[in-house]
Amino acid sequence: MSTEQTPRPTAARLSLYLRCLETWAQAALQTASSRQLASTLGLDAAQVRKDLAQLGNLGRRGIGYAIPALIEAIRKALGIDREWRAVLVGVGNLARALLRYRGFTDRGFRIVALFDADPEKSGDIVDGVSIYPMSELSARVRRLDAELGIVAVPAEAAQSVAQSLADAGVRGVLNFAPTVLQLPPTVRIVNVDLTIQLEQLAFQVASERS
Amino acid sequence: MSTEQTPRPTAARLSLYLRCLETWAQAALQTASSRQLASTLGLDAAQVRKDLAQLGNLGRRGIGYAIPALIEAIRKALGIDREWRAVLVGVGNLARALLRYRGFTDRGFRIVALFDADPEKSGDIVDGVSIYPMSELSARVRRLDAELGIVAVPAEAAQSVAQSLADAGVRGVLNFAPTVLQLPPTVRIVNVDLTIQLEQLAFQVASERS
Repeated sequence: MSTEQTPRPTAARLSLYLRCLETWAQAALQTASSRQLASTLGLDAAQVRKDLAQLGNLGRRGIGYAIPALIEAIRKALGIDREWRAVLVGVGNLARALLRYRGFTDRGFRIVALFDADPEKSGDIVDGVSIYPMSELSARVRRLDAELGIVAVPAEAAQSVAQSLADAGVRGVLNFAPTVLQLPPTVRIVNVDLTIQLEQLAFQVASERS
Repeated sequence: MSTEQTPRPTAARLSLYLRCLETWAQAALQTASSRQLASTLGLDAAQVRKDLAQLGNLGRRGIGYAIPALIEAIRKALGIDREWRAVLVGVGNLARALLRYRGFTDRGFRIVALFDADPEKSGDIVDGVSIYPMSELSARVRRLDAELGIVAVPAEAAQSVAQSLADAGVRGVLNFAPTVLQLPPTVRIVNVDLTIQLEQLAFQVASERS
């Protein structure tokens, strides 16, 4: 299957299935059923079967899905059966947390260069990755063939940093700054606004009580 | 309006409108139209009008919405027109990034205590907040009247930490560990799986190319 046939909400569920299946694979489980996935993730079993049917004829009635084959099929559908090279701008605590976050490398995401506006940080190495000045962003993104950019700078600097990444040829931006970026439509943006997540949690807790 | 009338996808959009409106308020803008919100956020203007109509009769034809009144109405609908007290477990780089993330305090989220399994860290103070041993979690959550818990520990420790938070009476958990938590249905969970966000970005970039 081509990734372009997978609509985005399905892609988000595939990521969740993958997370679950990997946990089970680590626990040495061999097969999984749509019902197990559905109940663990709070989804409808029919929905899970429909999503997984799109990956090919992988399930067997009465047995379920072979976990390793299903993991491979999902990784392929998500386009993560390859390495993705990313650069990160803004080397603060968040960047250090991301660099040590083994989930990224486990999934083939490699942070290949760091950039920071503070010239004092240039030349430093964090978890094996070098920090460069912003002036080198464009040349290094091209040379390293980085396709993704991670924006971990304060809100007021985010738009200009994202624009520099887009100008340098990055094709996707993961934005941690609590601001709305405006980039050319050829550059995909995924926002990780931590406050929004906390707001959604507060909203759910508040709704329950009222 | 009562927060229980707002369905979750609407709540997520309300968070986005709020982010946008606050940016405009800082730029001293007085009014905003549904069309401006829609085009900035890549949404449909009719959808924006429908969402905002649920907050009351706030818009005026040909003028738009008064930004301060709309901000207040959205904060109320989201249940963030009050202070939320949270405790955080796992004091690593991510925790330090979250503590310095001014978006949280700006929105009334206050991290009132930190906990860590490493006894060496007990007694330390990070950005004005004290670190306590895990053995004090239950008593301190109750004494501080904390309603939310933030899980910033490695995946293998997350379930046990989340269960301790639930046992201590926390009503919502923000989970940063890349694992699926199982908690009683009375405890709401919002997962922030950073890898999933990066996967979704990779998927979008991959789909575009194919």
